[in-house]
Amino acid sequence: MESRIRSAVEAGGVTEFNEDRYFDPDPTTRNLARELYDGTRALPIVSPHGHVDAAMLACNEAFADPASLIVTPDHYILRLLYSRGVSLESLGVRRIDDEKVDVESDSKKIWRTFAEHWQLFRATPTRAWVEYELHEVFGIDKSLNGETAGDVYDAIAERLQSPEFRPQALLKRFNIEFLATTDGASDSLESHASLRTADLGTRIVPTFRPDALFAIASGEWTEELKRFAGVTGGEIKTHADFINGIKKRRAEFKAVGATATDHAVITPHSERLADNDIERIFARAIEGKANRHDQSRFEAHMLMEMAAQSAEDGLVMQLHAGALRSHNEQVYKRYGPDRGGDIPVATEFTRNLRQLLNAYGNDPRFRLIVFTLDESAYGRELAPLAGHYPAMLLGAPWWFHDSIEGMTRFRRETTGTAGIENTAGFTDDTRAFCSIPARHDLSRRVDANYLAGLVARHIISMAEARDMARLLAYDLAKRAYRIDEDTKSK
Amino acid sequence: MESRIRSAVEAGGVTEFNEDRYFDPDPTTRNLARELYDGTRALPIVSPHGHVDAAMLACNEAFADPASLIVTPDHYILRLLYSRGVSLESLGVRRIDDEKVDVESDSKKIWRTFAEHWQLFRATPTRAWVEYELHEVFGIDKSLNGETAGDVYDAIAERLQSPEFRPQALLKRFNIEFLATTDGASDSLESHASLRTADLGTRIVPTFRPDALFAIASGEWTEELKRFAGVTGGEIKTHADFINGIKKRRAEFKAVGATATDHAVITPHSERLADNDIERIFARAIEGKANRHDQSRFEAHMLMEMAAQSAEDGLVMQLHAGALRSHNEQVYKRYGPDRGGDIPVATEFTRNLRQLLNAYGNDPRFRLIVFTLDESAYGRELAPLAGHYPAMLLGAPWWFHDSIEGMTRFRRETTGTAGIENTAGFTDDTRAFCSIPARHDLSRRVDANYLAGLVARHIISMAEARDMARLLAYDLAKRAYRIDEDTKSK
Amino acid sequence: MESRIRSAVEAGGVTEFNEDRYFDPDPTTRNLARELYDGTRALPIVSPHGHVDAAMLACNEAFADPASLIVTPDHYILRLLYSRGVSLESLGVRRIDDEKVDVESDSKKIWRTFAEHWQLFRATPTRAWVEYELHEVFGIDKSLNGETAGDVYDAIAERLQSPEFRPQALLKRFNIEFLATTDGASDSLESHASLRTADLGTRIVPTFRPDALFAIASGEWTEELKRFAGVTGGEIKTHADFINGIKKRRAEFKAVGATATDHAVITPHSERLADNDIERIFARAIEGKANRHDQSRFEAHMLMEMAAQSAEDGLVMQLHAGALRSHNEQVYKRYGPDRGGDIPVATEFTRNLRQLLNAYGNDPRFRLIVFTLDESAYGRELAPLAGHYPAMLLGAPWWFHDSIEGMTRFRRETTGTAGIENTAGFTDDTRAFCSIPARHDLSRRVDANYLAGLVARHIISMAEARDMARLLAYDLAKRAYRIDEDTKSK
Repeated sequence: MESRIRSAVEAGGVTEFNEDRYFDPDPTTRNLARELYDGTRALPIVSPHGHVDAAMLACNEAFADPASLIVTPDHYILRLLYSRGVSLESLGVRRIDDEKVDVESDSKKIWRTFAEHWQLFRATPTRAWVEYELHEVFGIDKSLNGETAGDVYDAIAERLQSPEFRPQALLKRFNIEFLATTDGASDSLESHASLRTADLGTRIVPTFRPDALFAIASGEWTEELKRFAGVTGGEIKTHADFINGIKKRRAEFKAVGATATDHAVITPHSERLADNDIERIFARAIEGKANRHDQSRFEAHMLMEMAAQSAEDGLVMQLHAGALRSHNEQVYKRYGPDRGGDIPVATEFTRNLRQLLNAYGNDPRFRLIVFTLDESAYGRELAPLAGHYPAMLLGAPWWFHDSIEGMTRFRRETTGTAGIENTAGFTDDTRAFCSIPARHDLSRRVDANYLAGLVARHIISMAEARDMARLLAYDLAKRAYRIDEDTKSK
Repeated sequence: MESRIRSAVEAGGVTEFNEDRYFDPDPTTRNLARELYDGTRALPIVSPHGHVDAAMLACNEAFADPASLIVTPDHYILRLLYSRGVSLESLGVRRIDDEKVDVESDSKKIWRTFAEHWQLFRATPTRAWVEYELHEVFGIDKSLNGETAGDVYDAIAERLQSPEFRPQALLKRFNIEFLATTDGASDSLESHASLRTADLGTRIVPTFRPDALFAIASGEWTEELKRFAGVTGGEIKTHADFINGIKKRRAEFKAVGATATDHAVITPHSERLADNDIERIFARAIEGKANRHDQSRFEAHMLMEMAAQSAEDGLVMQLHAGALRSHNEQVYKRYGPDRGGDIPVATEFTRNLRQLLNAYGNDPRFRLIVFTLDESAYGRELAPLAGHYPAMLLGAPWWFHDSIEGMTRFRRETTGTAGIENTAGFTDDTRAFCSIPARHDLSRRVDANYLAGLVARHIISMAEARDMARLLAYDLAKRAYRIDEDTKSK
Repeated sequence: MESRIRSAVEAGGVTEFNEDRYFDPDPTTRNLARELYDGTRALPIVSPHGHVDAAMLACNEAFADPASLIVTPDHYILRLLYSRGVSLESLGVRRIDDEKVDVESDSKKIWRTFAEHWQLFRATPTRAWVEYELHEVFGIDKSLNGETAGDVYDAIAERLQSPEFRPQALLKRFNIEFLATTDGASDSLESHASLRTADLGTRIVPTFRPDALFAIASGEWTEELKRFAGVTGGEIKTHADFINGIKKRRAEFKAVGATATDHAVITPHSERLADNDIERIFARAIEGKANRHDQSRFEAHMLMEMAAQSAEDGLVMQLHAGALRSHNEQVYKRYGPDRGGDIPVATEFTRNLRQLLNAYGNDPRFRLIVFTLDESAYGRELAPLAGHYPAMLLGAPWWFHDSIEGMTRFRRETTGTAGIENTAGFTDDTRAFCSIPARHDLSRRVDANYLAGLVARHIISMAEARDMARLLAYDLAKRAYRIDEDTKSK
């Protein structure tokens, strides 16, 4: 049968989208993996961390076209095409430095450029995600390449005009039970308020992410603070005022359903400063005189403060460490952030998180979920920390590691030390709405295959594997992000 | 047949403990692995590094009960249960800060708490070790869980009362040929002297581990030095006195059979100081004024000194680097050390060990065995160093990496560069006496499976694999720790 | 059939050299791997980075004997034998510090010493390479060991005397289409000029490697600069003169066919200094007063300068980072460099290369190929960088990682983020001429097996895998090193 499928594929037109994809070829493992995946494939999707636009969901307008839906906003796609010499202008990315530069505005041409370079994505997760979108979301059974580009484009474009492909219809079809967005500290939460009253069958909640407010050395900080003062309804002159504002906003986020906060840092250093030190640094920031060193100290202090507030208000604290943003300054100046130019750095957790974990890591009210881009920390630091501190969980493989190989390595390197129950389940972390089911499907397949390997080696029983598969696909995320707890408390 | 076994397992009562456990499911590899393992499973156990209590072996009293034997003293078990919210008090761990806090003293209740959380250990090495103990040491064929907890407890408790389960009987049954304990510099060696005259069929020897004596910035150092002066029979006023005391003690350890020393450091920095520098630091220590920086320099110097003495007296030098002890200060203050709160840090070897290896690494009299908790150093630094310097060997995967996946990674990342003969064989490194055969069995299975994979890929022949399996299971440890050499010289 | 082969092997004499060697034993994967490998095994060899001696090729004299061809010059062999106590003198390595020390000069005895320790190489790449040489290059079907050593030696020695085993005949038989050597900045290029006019069927070109010229704190720098001034035909008094000399030499290398430069650094820090700063440092160097810190700054500046010149003249810039050379000072003083005593260090790329990539990484004229000895950087830094910057490609797994496991890890950790087309194909990087086909064959087998695993898991189709196998074995190297481009431009 295998060979029949392969011949069909090579004969042309039809693309292979095998039901057993991503499972090990060894028959024992494959059969077990298939059985385990069958038990989780239909579970509702819990998506506690991502970047979907709440306004898009609230407005529920039809998506404009295939390129602006799938190609132009996806930094995974932009980066790989750019690395092979495809200009960002030809992919429809606007220049923020010079509006006179020609940017491709023909969506079909953008799509064709993407399709003509589709071979670059072979064996990348983007390939797996987009293939799923084409097949499962849009029902297209053609392989993507330069020749089929036009037909595939037309087929998607046609679907997008039908009511079944509006955002809220897709939410239902994707079987998304819970969806958290990521929102700035000064966000109005208007869309969330309106989504909250709609009867969508999906609980959509914001996540409090105040990073921009903590970047006191940034040129945009004064403006950011002003906006924040606006939404918190008062003047912010001191660090104490600032802390009060943050508490207020956390409460407002919580009121519309938020269960978590999110914090992005390069170095996860945590250190509480003395009150007069932090006030002095804040005063310098207010005067526009804070430097990078001030900001580092401020951020280290604010990690402590955010943990303290999490212990108080119960919002789960997420920490994403190790991305050096906008490494490529030319790309940043021309096209802005999130165009594929963020690069990871080695990240130390054991010493950096020590003060925070000593202060709050034994506190049952506190929960910290830690994400890394430095896989060498999985087994060396993060699994040992998560496998000891009651408050800490290990977040899903993040960004560059959200691949078949990356997710497999994550399980192999952390389970022996932390078990699976100190991990936080899967988070898709995506801006690409239509890729949400693709990413969860991939994750469920990879975990099923991992567990099948354990059963095949008689490390666990099949009954245990079934239970673990469900935990990994569904329960752990709900538990980690206190989704059930919050539900009950309302 | 596979499916028959699985059904039986899932039907309930009987737990699976498959004869082919931990082998790859691919039939070629599995058949080869089974054959290789059959050649090593019955070899005597050589355990050159561990933490068994010599007094326990010498006294040979019956073990008290299942919980105090298996649960309460095992930091692998404590840490994972603690991470999921189980209190250490409920596991019978005494508070050292406040004796009035209630601690569970009912061994059966402790065991039940452990059993009720047994699912947390799925796919961890603790699961494999304890399963082996239940099945192979205690002959219990029930799965462990909340329902079976009582029966399993009673069965173990009953066995523990019989003469066949006294420590010395188990030593014989476990087929332990050589067992090294770990002992402080001021240890009386009384138990070892008595074990030496007993006719046990096992050679039991101490290991000289003077870490506490080198921690000159610690509050307990003065007391430690006093004890040391006591056993070395003289005043210690200068660093020269100190060195003489150490030489004397090394000789005494060697006289009762020791073949090795052990040194634990966070950073393996090695650097000989000038005589007047080291005397000045030692003088500050005597006055109770040594700080952390002094201690770092002192430790770096003492690594050089220990290497020099090893080259002289032939004791094998073991170096365990990279554990930040008692990361969780609350747990440390309440329950003391070794409760699961030690966390690894990234560790540099190439530059740090350079002075030591330049001074002694080409000396045929010297042997250094290096252990790491930082797997990224396996292929980058440790295999290249061990694959070049005659004096250096690479120690077995340590602590958090002593798992099926961890041991497999170790071989895959080091063999290409260092071969297997620059590694030191397996060390169980355990405090859990009954887990010794479990750990060696697991290691032999993993190595057999690794070698089977090489044969199946035609990288080595089956004859070579048989020879290598025996080296890994038995000969390399004896060779590395100079066990045969010492035996002959007596 | 498998078992028949194994029995034959174990019966003695005949050594196994299985046609399916290095492929996964799973039948699905193995069949696919074999098919993919069949499509690449006969492709010509492109070797764009290596250390073959151009004079040896130009002179085309018979190789002297098996030991001086295979054993004595191979630092992989020397290091592992030395690590197990075999003296370098017994392997024919001359003492540079003391000519009176006896060195083994009997080639057959050296060969026998090697053969008697052949078991140390089990499961190392050296084993695979030498086995290939014996079987495929020299047509020997005996296993190597102490007993067969003499016969094997005689057989190789006999072959070496025949015209078919002269260097140029082997070039043809090995089917080497392109071969780059590595040459100092002051090299005469005489051999290359003569090879250029010969009709060899192989394009042999030099590579410009000016490391020694940048080591301004080294005792040999003044001499090195003098030599450089000699070949560039003028006095070098200022850094501006120096830069002019380098430009001139790059042009001369290019004129005899060079397509690339190569730069070895411990830390890949890149930073352009102000003109007066760099002139000041250069002036100190001229006076013989440059220190290590000066050299670090100088090297960081020269990386920027080399990138600038590459953007101008189109020579591909190679960067080999992270080898701490001659870690073992005793071995270095006695036997010189490249005797197996180089040890890797952890290497940071994201921050260190930032200035260079910001300046030139978006420039289509520039190409940078980066090699590392620190595998933890593959997925964390190098694949993200290569998967974003148009100018950057990721070099093949280098040195200690040029093994079955190492090459497999490389693909698994980089493909998801960078795809295969941001990697530079295979480079054998060898001094051992007869191992060139062995190394390419191993690489092709490992890549075929990797791709087969992707097909077996339905991640890519077989048609895609065939295309990718060819890219990895042949096309990517030509593309990366601008081999076709240069050819056309002449």
